[in-house]
Amino acid sequence: MAKTCLVLLAEGSEETEVVASVDTLRRAEINVTLASLHGKDPVTCSRGVIIVPDASLDDIDDEAVYDVILVPGGLKGVENLSQSPKVARLLKNHEKRGSIIAAICAGPLCLMTHSIGLGKKVTSHPSVQDKLVAGGYQYSEQIACKD
Amino acid sequence: MAKTCLVLLAEGSEETEVVASVDTLRRAEINVTLASLHGKDPVTCSRGVIIVPDASLDDIDDEAVYDVILVPGGLKGVENLSQSPKVARLLKNHEKRGSIIAAICAGPLCLMTHSIGLGKKVTSHPSVQDKLVAGGYQYSEQIACKD
Repeated sequence: MAKTCLVLLAEGSEETEVVASVDTLRRAEINVTLASLHGKDPVTCSRGVIIVPDASLDDIDDEAVYDVILVPGGLKGVENLSQSPKVARLLKNHEKRGSIIAAICAGPLCLMTHSIGLGKKVTSHPSVQDKLVAGGYQYSEQIACKD
Repeated sequence: MAKTCLVLLAEGSEETEVVASVDTLRRAEINVTLASLHGKDPVTCSRGVIIVPDASLDDIDDEAVYDVILVPGGLKGVENLSQSPKVARLLKNHEKRGSIIAAICAGPLCLMTHSIGLGKKVTSHPSVQDKLVAGGYQYSEQIACKD
């Protein structure tokens, strides 16, 4: 069965990080759902590109199981996702199951806010490094890392 | 005054090539208009990402002047743009003025169909190399080239 990925989308998400991720994952034949924090309406990303989501996060069951949840960057988008109890529930359920939780750029701040993977190794946009270190993560200088 | 770029969008355009271009150009403070061949409706790209354009190509004057027109790839999108007399008029007007015309991946096929820059140096996705050579372009094996 094809693997599945839930990509989170919010106003201010970084559009290339969202779209290149969805595109690349679909090329790898992973079933991707691009789900918005703001219902089914079009979402304006950090540089003004407007994307129509596949689904509303509200319509996704808290217990839904994906092989991967991906949090894109874009500071404002990450702030929006960080404030969402729905995102918290989805991430916590996935952490419990040992599913992959991926975050790009400022995305790890969302994990920190929801207390996901604390103590683990992360990397990020340099501008949020200090916050992640203060939040208790091990910081990697590599462009990508896994823990 | 800020430079301007018109990015063309059609059903089947390659979403990362569209979005990463718009994103990068806006970070460089270039005024980008993402204009759709299909009016103002959301456009479904090659891997299913749905993008809302900034403008309809129909609303753009044939004599409008941009510093750059950019043709993204995505074979189906390129085929759609290749069939458009409006795209032909915009590209021809820009070629006459000596403005920059950029094309990514399969995008040069659209230039070929509209007889833009014939004889010049291009590069492309390898799958369309033979057509471009047969169409009279000089072919570069580099990942990007300018002529």
